[in-house]
Amino acid sequence: MIKVSVMYPNTPGARFNHDYYRDKHMPLVKAKMGDACKFYTVDKGLAGGAPGAPATYIGMCHIYADSVDDFQRGFGPHAPEIMGDIPNYTDQAPVVQISDVLVDKG
Amino acid sequence: MIKVSVMYPNTPGARFNHDYYRDKHMPLVKAKMGDACKFYTVDKGLAGGAPGAPATYIGMCHIYADSVDDFQRGFGPHAPEIMGDIPNYTDQAPVVQISDVLVDKG
Repeated sequence: MIKVSVMYPNTPGARFNHDYYRDKHMPLVKAKMGDACKFYTVDKGLAGGAPGAPATYIGMCHIYADSVDDFQRGFGPHAPEIMGDIPNYTDQAPVVQISDVLVDKG
Repeated sequence: MIKVSVMYPNTPGARFNHDYYRDKHMPLVKAKMGDACKFYTVDKGLAGGAPGAPATYIGMCHIYADSVDDFQRGFGPHAPEIMGDIPNYTDQAPVVQISDVLVDKG
């Protein structure tokens, strides 16, 4: 199983609407991707590792798929609509990473 | 529920032993933290978001706890031993972030 992590930098003054992201954007992603998205998780950045340090990312999601091909097949055709929704919740450009899930929650 | 993400930068030439991390280091973390660690996940970076782009992080773990206090109570006393094991699998210093889990796998 792979995961696609979409991580929004926590730059000073960054705008991020966590409610919209959780309640509107991510359900849109799931609806468009269908079964190609096995499930997803959503995080809100709280803090960094050192005392008083800010979180590196203000918000993140992780989209799980059986394979990179599955993800691309599910996401690609809807990319314009999904990415067009980004300005509705943030002014940040995300860092995107694809990872192999070596240990899952189970 | 909160998660503590430990993310190792994928710098050119970075050393990272994924087998050791999955099979030795993370079980050590769980054993030391006990119930303070509800569960954890482990990722291996495959690629970035753009074609041909490298992953931002070569390896990551995410440690889930009921609260930041729970995490700190479980991790703090064992931090020297756990962090002393880092050179056994990598030469990278991790980026650490604490997040509120807004949507979980369920």
